[in-house]
Amino acid sequence: MQLLMNAKEVEAYIDEVFPQIENYGFQIEGLEVGKISVSMKVSKEHLRPGGTVSGPTMFTLADCASYLIVLAHIGKVALAVTTNLNINFIAKPDGDLIADAKLLKLGKRLAVCEISIRSKTKNLLVAHATATYSIPPSR
Amino acid sequence: MQLLMNAKEVEAYIDEVFPQIENYGFQIEGLEVGKISVSMKVSKEHLRPGGTVSGPTMFTLADCASYLIVLAHIGKVALAVTTNLNINFIAKPDGDLIADAKLLKLGKRLAVCEISIRSKTKNLLVAHATATYSIPPSR
Amino acid sequence: MQLLMNAKEVEAYIDEVFPQIENYGFQIEGLEVGKISVSMKVSKEHLRPGGTVSGPTMFTLADCASYLIVLAHIGKVALAVTTNLNINFIAKPDGDLIADAKLLKLGKRLAVCEISIRSKTKNLLVAHATATYSIPPSR
Amino acid sequence: MQLLMNAKEVEAYIDEVFPQIENYGFQIEGLEVGKISVSMKVSKEHLRPGGTVSGPTMFTLADCASYLIVLAHIGKVALAVTTNLNINFIAKPDGDLIADAKLLKLGKRLAVCEISIRSKTKNLLVAHATATYSIPPSR
Repeated sequence: MQLLMNAKEVEAYIDEVFPQIENYGFQIEGLEVGKISVSMKVSKEHLRPGGTVSGPTMFTLADCASYLIVLAHIGKVALAVTTNLNINFIAKPDGDLIADAKLLKLGKRLAVCEISIRSKTKNLLVAHATATYSIPPSR
Repeated sequence: MQLLMNAKEVEAYIDEVFPQIENYGFQIEGLEVGKISVSMKVSKEHLRPGGTVSGPTMFTLADCASYLIVLAHIGKVALAVTTNLNINFIAKPDGDLIADAKLLKLGKRLAVCEISIRSKTKNLLVAHATATYSIPPSR
Repeated sequence: MQLLMNAKEVEAYIDEVFPQIENYGFQIEGLEVGKISVSMKVSKEHLRPGGTVSGPTMFTLADCASYLIVLAHIGKVALAVTTNLNINFIAKPDGDLIADAKLLKLGKRLAVCEISIRSKTKNLLVAHATATYSIPPSR
Repeated sequence: MQLLMNAKEVEAYIDEVFPQIENYGFQIEGLEVGKISVSMKVSKEHLRPGGTVSGPTMFTLADCASYLIVLAHIGKVALAVTTNLNINFIAKPDGDLIADAKLLKLGKRLAVCEISIRSKTKNLLVAHATATYSIPPSR
């Protein structure tokens, strides 16, 4: 495993594939071999009644963070596709979020990631996910 | 199992809990004991490059449809919470979507649903999910 | 989608890949395009205290049934590998079991199945699973 | 979170709930607040053609390790039940296995665990799972 893109290159590239990323206020906070941290500024539109961040918003953050760590390792030529995402909602989120995604596997055809989402201020685990990506043969 | 709310009552209620439902153009197409059909008008903001509906959008539809079928059976007093959602992306979606959600289990504490998402025009399966909801004791 | 093997051919072949199948008393009850039914005679060794069939036993039945339906469609040359299996345990099982597995997707690289496990006598849903198989390129 | 049983007490108790544990050669290698390590001696009966440990065997190890960590924290009065287990098979296993299970959540009604299974000699990740347990109200 080695990085083929740095954080800046990844961020520049994702504007194309995740154009909604701006709405979400996602930002890469750290990137190293096999690991990425992506933060999310929570604004009104992501909230449910009671001030909770919605499940779909956390799904989006999990999917984005794991997509980015795969991308950073396979380069921007390839177009990986999410084939499976399993998410457990652990606790009521509160405030801005941070997702730590780890590459569990980077095969020729499949990549598997594990993602922990925490409340930034309280360092509380709010959701945990695993995701699988299919990597196109053109790689 | 029996319905405690009809489609109109469910739709009126979800404007509160899923306020973003209007942005998504979700609409209940059918509701009977243990089953619901929810359609979604796909507009530009849900699309990825290449015209694909984004994964988070399909997650939202799956979560919404299964939430609504649980709601219709437990009534609007209860506030069910998604605890787990597992989604497999099957084929590239195309055009408006329809989600068929079935209740696999309606226990005192947990409800489990299965959701199939299809392209409305082609009747093609594009995603399949299972979701678990925790039902509060106040029920 | 079309069948490349019939039930007899599949059963003959699985003795090699699922040698433990005899211990489990698995038997193909029906096979058609996209669908299979596999029954399981429950004996003492699969039971937990209280007479419940163990989770691992139901996992084995789910994995076996979905493996067999994939096998019947790709032929015995290929050696598919389980990459993901997600199982929800719905109700306490009682007596012999029957698993109905459906092919949700049969792609060049991945097959996705949905499996329902029922108590044979009561026709009660006891578990529900989805499974993904990686299909080798040599296919 | 605190431990209500030590490794010896847990091992003594599981002979009742996991009687098949002896066949599997499971052994607790370490137990602390929120974490457990369980090893498994791989013998012929767990192998598939090619020398691979079977999927059901890894499911059993994942389920057992996470069940034990929940048990150690809720005490032997309670009878937790697996409600969901999602497993990703990462690499071909080789030789004896070790499972590290972590408690992600220990609520009044639900516990969520994350499990990594490694080949003991090569320290290679071979499978990764998450599991949810329902904790009975009698707790």
